[in-house]
Amino acid sequence: MSNRDGVAVFTPGSIGNVGPGLDILGLAVAGAGDTVHASWGTASGITVVDTGHPDLPDDPTRNTAAIAAAAVARHAGASRGIALRITKGLPLSGGQGGSAASAVAGAMAANLLLEADLDTATLLTCALEAEATVAGRHLDNIAPSLLGGLVLIRSLEPIDVVRLPVPPTLRVVLVHPAMQLRTRDARAALPTEVPRDVALQQAANVAAMVAGACLADLALLGRAIDDRIAEPVRAALLPGFPDARRAALDAGALGCSISGAGPTAFALADSDEAATAVAAAMVAAYATAGLEARPVVTRPDLEGTRRA
Amino acid sequence: MSNRDGVAVFTPGSIGNVGPGLDILGLAVAGAGDTVHASWGTASGITVVDTGHPDLPDDPTRNTAAIAAAAVARHAGASRGIALRITKGLPLSGGQGGSAASAVAGAMAANLLLEADLDTATLLTCALEAEATVAGRHLDNIAPSLLGGLVLIRSLEPIDVVRLPVPPTLRVVLVHPAMQLRTRDARAALPTEVPRDVALQQAANVAAMVAGACLADLALLGRAIDDRIAEPVRAALLPGFPDARRAALDAGALGCSISGAGPTAFALADSDEAATAVAAAMVAAYATAGLEARPVVTRPDLEGTRRA
Repeated sequence: MSNRDGVAVFTPGSIGNVGPGLDILGLAVAGAGDTVHASWGTASGITVVDTGHPDLPDDPTRNTAAIAAAAVARHAGASRGIALRITKGLPLSGGQGGSAASAVAGAMAANLLLEADLDTATLLTCALEAEATVAGRHLDNIAPSLLGGLVLIRSLEPIDVVRLPVPPTLRVVLVHPAMQLRTRDARAALPTEVPRDVALQQAANVAAMVAGACLADLALLGRAIDDRIAEPVRAALLPGFPDARRAALDAGALGCSISGAGPTAFALADSDEAATAVAAAMVAAYATAGLEARPVVTRPDLEGTRRA
Repeated sequence: MSNRDGVAVFTPGSIGNVGPGLDILGLAVAGAGDTVHASWGTASGITVVDTGHPDLPDDPTRNTAAIAAAAVARHAGASRGIALRITKGLPLSGGQGGSAASAVAGAMAANLLLEADLDTATLLTCALEAEATVAGRHLDNIAPSLLGGLVLIRSLEPIDVVRLPVPPTLRVVLVHPAMQLRTRDARAALPTEVPRDVALQQAANVAAMVAGACLADLALLGRAIDDRIAEPVRAALLPGFPDARRAALDAGALGCSISGAGPTAFALADSDEAATAVAAAMVAAYATAGLEARPVVTRPDLEGTRRA
């Protein structure tokens, strides 16, 4: 395939901080995503020709797709300029991994345009450089957006990520209430120290989620969605969420928590029917709390980043 | 089978706190174990006819096998007295799950004698009551000793344990240096609070161990044995251990850490040959530190508690 006319890459959105997996567990979600088109630029370096959204910067040192593409170019030793055109399918700050998806798509688009064939760890490093400038130094959105599926981040130094099996009947509900929550504020709410017993309980639940995924035990996967570190403090910043969570579980959700830093909430279910019922129950709960909420019923994205 | 002459139950030893799995991950180990023989007693309640070791109490309120047997009798609504004869195959306080094994064997022996047919959670509760009196309220030795294999403790209230697959080539090395370390002192050394990033790193490593076991990825299982909470403070109480750990990894161990609260160290390997080399390297390292050490090369016990 010639790259003369450029390459286009699609990257799905993702749930970060899946339940107790703060910073370490992420799930790629089918449906909306970001697309980045990369072609040879007339200027040197990276140029953002189209940011895809009026609120996103075209300054290549502040745009995540451009930062990641520049990192790829640097790793590849490229000298020609690259022009990026971004199509934003994901909300800017909803907790659906939008900044990470753009970073991953930017990295992969540059990688393909340059025929650099960088390995997974290097691509993750390049996207992480971008994500760190806007959302923090963590891979729990980036890694699933690149690889697809459910991904455990064992270590950042060195990068060590584990793609886990995804039970085939797993369904995903995302509910985005009409409110703003800045990732920075959501992170600032996190405790810097945690009691040892809470740390061990959290570890047990993340490990049980992994066991549930690997053993296709959806009930285990669901009941292990029990976050004792982030959710208790973040729920206080998210009116309606505690009621929506209760409604989701009452309606048959396997588990329910905050997607990334919020405000989007997510729930897992074991069938399309259950997922639809859970979505309706959550929307109704937000409505009772005076918040309009937009539901999406979908499934894990198993493919990850691919040519668009 | 008639219980007229009593029943005898064998329970294997175990590694508790497997690597980062403080209080939540345990592995049953083939070889040494404790045996409890239960028969109808002439007195009411539980009588310990033979403690199996001069240093163990025959007071049924202080003997773990008797406490667990009494709890089973209570759950079963039994009125006849039970006499216990204990054969100790495990060291009393080496970090090889000896108190837990006696508790589990006592519980199961009473369960079989009484034909009570208690479920797993109830048997665990009975053994936990005993373990809590001598070693703390945790199931990471009890659950693998009962069920066999590698067991994740997701929750104590309610009891929720997950038996994980064990890769068939996994081998276990136990090395017991000639020193005493009281479980109480080893627990007192643990921090009551941990930094959030340490808590998340620990969770990632426990989860990665679970993934390694489920996916039969022994390299992942091994490199995830990276305990940032207990090992750093306990290693300071265990002269020779840091050198033995380094020697084990240099000799090809998948991973190495402290078994339970120590002083026994454990290492995992992927073949009998590697395990033998690792054991020799660890013993040599302890010798250099002036400590005689007794090695055992074995494998996981997959069967757990059974009739003797």
